[in-house]
Amino acid sequence: MNFMESFVVSVGGSMINPSSVDVEYIKEFSKIIKSVDAPKIGIVVGGGQTARTYVNSMKNFTDNDFFLDEIGIMATRLNAKIVKSSIGKLELNIPEDVNEAVKQLLIEDRIVMGGTVPGHTTDTVSVLLAEAVGIKKVYNLTSVDRVYEDDPKKNPKAKAIETMNYKEAFSISLKSYTGAGSNQFMDSVALLIAMRSGIEINLMHGKDLNNFKNALKGEKFIGTKIRAD
Amino acid sequence: MNFMESFVVSVGGSMINPSSVDVEYIKEFSKIIKSVDAPKIGIVVGGGQTARTYVNSMKNFTDNDFFLDEIGIMATRLNAKIVKSSIGKLELNIPEDVNEAVKQLLIEDRIVMGGTVPGHTTDTVSVLLAEAVGIKKVYNLTSVDRVYEDDPKKNPKAKAIETMNYKEAFSISLKSYTGAGSNQFMDSVALLIAMRSGIEINLMHGKDLNNFKNALKGEKFIGTKIRAD
Amino acid sequence: MNFMESFVVSVGGSMINPSSVDVEYIKEFSKIIKSVDAPKIGIVVGGGQTARTYVNSMKNFTDNDFFLDEIGIMATRLNAKIVKSSIGKLELNIPEDVNEAVKQLLIEDRIVMGGTVPGHTTDTVSVLLAEAVGIKKVYNLTSVDRVYEDDPKKNPKAKAIETMNYKEAFSISLKSYTGAGSNQFMDSVALLIAMRSGIEINLMHGKDLNNFKNALKGEKFIGTKIRAD
Amino acid sequence: MNFMESFVVSVGGSMINPSSVDVEYIKEFSKIIKSVDAPKIGIVVGGGQTARTYVNSMKNFTDNDFFLDEIGIMATRLNAKIVKSSIGKLELNIPEDVNEAVKQLLIEDRIVMGGTVPGHTTDTVSVLLAEAVGIKKVYNLTSVDRVYEDDPKKNPKAKAIETMNYKEAFSISLKSYTGAGSNQFMDSVALLIAMRSGIEINLMHGKDLNNFKNALKGEKFIGTKIRAD
Amino acid sequence: MNFMESFVVSVGGSMINPSSVDVEYIKEFSKIIKSVDAPKIGIVVGGGQTARTYVNSMKNFTDNDFFLDEIGIMATRLNAKIVKSSIGKLELNIPEDVNEAVKQLLIEDRIVMGGTVPGHTTDTVSVLLAEAVGIKKVYNLTSVDRVYEDDPKKNPKAKAIETMNYKEAFSISLKSYTGAGSNQFMDSVALLIAMRSGIEINLMHGKDLNNFKNALKGEKFIGTKIRAD
Amino acid sequence: MNFMESFVVSVGGSMINPSSVDVEYIKEFSKIIKSVDAPKIGIVVGGGQTARTYVNSMKNFTDNDFFLDEIGIMATRLNAKIVKSSIGKLELNIPEDVNEAVKQLLIEDRIVMGGTVPGHTTDTVSVLLAEAVGIKKVYNLTSVDRVYEDDPKKNPKAKAIETMNYKEAFSISLKSYTGAGSNQFMDSVALLIAMRSGIEINLMHGKDLNNFKNALKGEKFIGTKIRAD
Repeated sequence: MNFMESFVVSVGGSMINPSSVDVEYIKEFSKIIKSVDAPKIGIVVGGGQTARTYVNSMKNFTDNDFFLDEIGIMATRLNAKIVKSSIGKLELNIPEDVNEAVKQLLIEDRIVMGGTVPGHTTDTVSVLLAEAVGIKKVYNLTSVDRVYEDDPKKNPKAKAIETMNYKEAFSISLKSYTGAGSNQFMDSVALLIAMRSGIEINLMHGKDLNNFKNALKGEKFIGTKIRAD
Repeated sequence: MNFMESFVVSVGGSMINPSSVDVEYIKEFSKIIKSVDAPKIGIVVGGGQTARTYVNSMKNFTDNDFFLDEIGIMATRLNAKIVKSSIGKLELNIPEDVNEAVKQLLIEDRIVMGGTVPGHTTDTVSVLLAEAVGIKKVYNLTSVDRVYEDDPKKNPKAKAIETMNYKEAFSISLKSYTGAGSNQFMDSVALLIAMRSGIEINLMHGKDLNNFKNALKGEKFIGTKIRAD
Repeated sequence: MNFMESFVVSVGGSMINPSSVDVEYIKEFSKIIKSVDAPKIGIVVGGGQTARTYVNSMKNFTDNDFFLDEIGIMATRLNAKIVKSSIGKLELNIPEDVNEAVKQLLIEDRIVMGGTVPGHTTDTVSVLLAEAVGIKKVYNLTSVDRVYEDDPKKNPKAKAIETMNYKEAFSISLKSYTGAGSNQFMDSVALLIAMRSGIEINLMHGKDLNNFKNALKGEKFIGTKIRAD
Repeated sequence: MNFMESFVVSVGGSMINPSSVDVEYIKEFSKIIKSVDAPKIGIVVGGGQTARTYVNSMKNFTDNDFFLDEIGIMATRLNAKIVKSSIGKLELNIPEDVNEAVKQLLIEDRIVMGGTVPGHTTDTVSVLLAEAVGIKKVYNLTSVDRVYEDDPKKNPKAKAIETMNYKEAFSISLKSYTGAGSNQFMDSVALLIAMRSGIEINLMHGKDLNNFKNALKGEKFIGTKIRAD
Repeated sequence: MNFMESFVVSVGGSMINPSSVDVEYIKEFSKIIKSVDAPKIGIVVGGGQTARTYVNSMKNFTDNDFFLDEIGIMATRLNAKIVKSSIGKLELNIPEDVNEAVKQLLIEDRIVMGGTVPGHTTDTVSVLLAEAVGIKKVYNLTSVDRVYEDDPKKNPKAKAIETMNYKEAFSISLKSYTGAGSNQFMDSVALLIAMRSGIEINLMHGKDLNNFKNALKGEKFIGTKIRAD
Repeated sequence: MNFMESFVVSVGGSMINPSSVDVEYIKEFSKIIKSVDAPKIGIVVGGGQTARTYVNSMKNFTDNDFFLDEIGIMATRLNAKIVKSSIGKLELNIPEDVNEAVKQLLIEDRIVMGGTVPGHTTDTVSVLLAEAVGIKKVYNLTSVDRVYEDDPKKNPKAKAIETMNYKEAFSISLKSYTGAGSNQFMDSVALLIAMRSGIEINLMHGKDLNNFKNALKGEKFIGTKIRAD
């Protein structure tokens, strides 16, 4: 696939690892990645079922959220390792922070990583990575197909949003903090960093990989674009 | 000073380093810290004028916010080194992440650090450190004396808040994201982490160190308490 | 439990994580560990189902056994993290090599780890750790109740062994290498290291934790003792 | 020398450093390495006399085999450093584990290393390195000219083996474990790893470097080939 | 600028950061560096006013010169970060020792660093870096325009030196150690290392960057050349 | 031996390892160290014959003094490992820089190290370590019995010096730089650091360990004291 722009893609754990490692999904996903000739590609992978299992098991022994975050992050790296193997780039370790990822991108043109530190989601990692490398496009493969103006579970008539800017994104996202809605599609740090660096986020349901392919090609896709304006 | 509870204190760069390193302030601050017999004390220091100077100078050469954050973090560590010297604990390096700080607290009972990674303010670091160690009290020595219900610059009648819970804190803090006010006293990640781990934040103007001492003693102080309820 | 001798215990992944994380088992196991007053305890944890799942999934993408070992080792560390939380010692990271574990034992008297490098099983890690610290007793909680003189699956009359020395252990173990039997209860490096350092190995089925307790107390237990003579 | 296949060569300490550093040998050895145009070459160097001297001296003070192994490994790295200088590639440090070596091979096409961790011989390191990089050929320059069917010291009529497969190699090697012979030409972990990854081992006496050259060229050589079948 | 030889340049803190970060100076300096097509360039940056401020402030709390050196070194790295941004090479961190710098030079052809360890000035770092990489030319941009035969402050007729060899350089430099003059233009370790490796040092006032350009071109420049003979 | 003051001792490689590892010397030396009840002891060990052999061998392949220094430093660490084993403190690794040594001294009260970086002799390391820890006494066990006012090889009537201050020490030491004599008993960086931090150096021939014992006890000893005045 002819595609000259570098990008970062954040793949939700619920895609890679919904109830166990989804080998078929990873096969299809890596086929797309290998077909793209972008100069640099960063892939950030979430924790999925493995993270949930370990975090929940560990809650029997501690309520320390810092270390619960840590075991979740360890799980994201297991998923990242699989994805790394699927694109045939196993030589370098899974980078454990964004700096290491940036360094690896000087040596290899595809890197795969999971989470970094407690307090940062993999969504945040994906925009930090884009920012550090000077990449302006992030694809977010998540478990919802679009952002809605209102919580679609409560309000079935809630309108889907095709494109919005960061101010609008914050208005919707922040409702969840104050209890006014559980409609948070992305954490606020990720949005803030994307905004300050003018990074466009393309959010879509990860299961439809043809849709992702369309988005990569710059064609119409089902999802929500958060414009850097 | 008899004070049995471990705590973390986040000292704003504008206290330690308003236009240059404020030796007299650090002397007074360290005298308080040395007089306290808390089992563990974590001190997190901001960047102040040094951070501003280097970030602004570097903006002549790059607009990459990730690396601008990095040079700001390097400046916080210079300030942290001075503060570390003022409490007579120079053997260990300034920890560069929260994990390292937690490890150091197994060996030494006072640690001093600055920032950690782009995307995390020193306020966030202070609550993450508290969370990891299981500390339930954070003091935030900042450049405002209290949180107000409204932006006091725009609304001179804005009421000061003595105490509030996290939900209320979010309501006020988040206005700034959407342009409804520039009244953000603390970043949202810091608040989220403090809330999830039930960490009480005591925010006050850092210049009045007697006031800080009163707060440490559990006495009445001028400032805003964010209660973990 | 009054027990003055330091020891290392290797807990098979099939105990901690037979088909998922076995919280009840870990609870019971950690209760025993916390009740023991040995000066130093090293716990080495295997990979279990998580390791199997990730290794098998990754085989769809690579046949490189070095990196397959690596992802298996990553899984052991997730299990180790849970066990670490269960004994209430979360401050230090999971040590990634034996040297780091030895250093941690200067600061904390209980450490938990998983695998280290491709080519070393967690059984090997357990005896290397014992050797480095000068510990002379290793407990191996595995999925067989005893070592048999012959493969019990092929020869139902195979005699169980209560105690043997290292030479005898090798005779039995090594049959598997040459296809003469699949009766390998422990890898040969682990046996060699235990032998050269006079480390006694007490092998037993891990499910019966009362039996493990008996073994710790120096009482009679069901299992096989490999004597250092 | 036209030679397109990547390989790993394990050079025994008794070659490089029989009673002291053998500069002439290293000169001749490096001339061969520099004349070969294989894409990637990994060189793993043993400890020789320096290792023996330090290990034996240290035995006056400790019988801890873990740390005795460590000082032996430190000696292998001194030898590796000399060999590294002889091929004119001094910029990168001697890698201290196989992962680091794999990373270095992304930047430089020749790497030199010694041992890694207690419990792994340099022979084991050489096959682990080959496995990680996906190299299928290991040359083992040792102090015997061939593997014999029986211990040639005890049985002067013992037949030399030109080629065998892994099963046969184990049969011979493992006799030494059970006291049935001291004919172990390679440790069992090295054999196991080579077998699982289909790595061909070409074992020969290291002193005859013309013979090594013949082996590299794919010509007939005096030694024993362990076939990956 | 056509300039084929690799070089190291040591830029005094008094150039980069006389009383604050001198953005204009750095702009002009980096323009020269970016115009040069030398294969490898190493830039070592001093501490300037930031170092002085922090060292002097810290003297209120400790007289431990090791840690005073350390905070000075931290300041050099802030200056190095700015210079690194000015030449558009931000991906790699500021190397904290010469080995790391040598490794970075395998990946990037321009590196920027500050100090390394207490006891080594940035002048010493610059010659160590040159030595390690095999570079034979160091430019030293300092706050004096030439070396004089005698202390020009005491003896206004002191003759400026255009070129000298290392023996002569020592004679002048070492007077300062014994109180016979304060004419030390470079520390003795730097001179010793430059001498042992035949590195030519070209010392000049850093403010006149046209003069530096002339020196780079191999043209006549105002300054002192210490010849490697 | 009752001795309350912490100290650093620099043991020349020619003592520990004159033509090979001198086990008897190390036995006697460690007996003294183990009999002393000083709060903290730092031991810095030189390279001796092993360093010479490897450096000289490597000169056949490179004239890069940086890497020749490095292999010499690797040799000092082998010697340090032996000495570490002789005092029964093997848990921690040989620290590779002074910072690491300072950290280790928070956990263990005896540390042993060799060299650190090219450009620093082990004598320099010993005074840097003393400076960092705040130790005011360094013992230097070397291969001369005293410092002489003139080169005793050239001038047999040269007077031995029992005690001198740093200014006098420089006068004698620096002659060697300018070819006026080969009487350098200690490198100038070591002297400069000792002087700036008021560290007393007690230099003596290392072979006479009773003499060293006398010096430790504060009694008269044969050697030269460089006073911190």
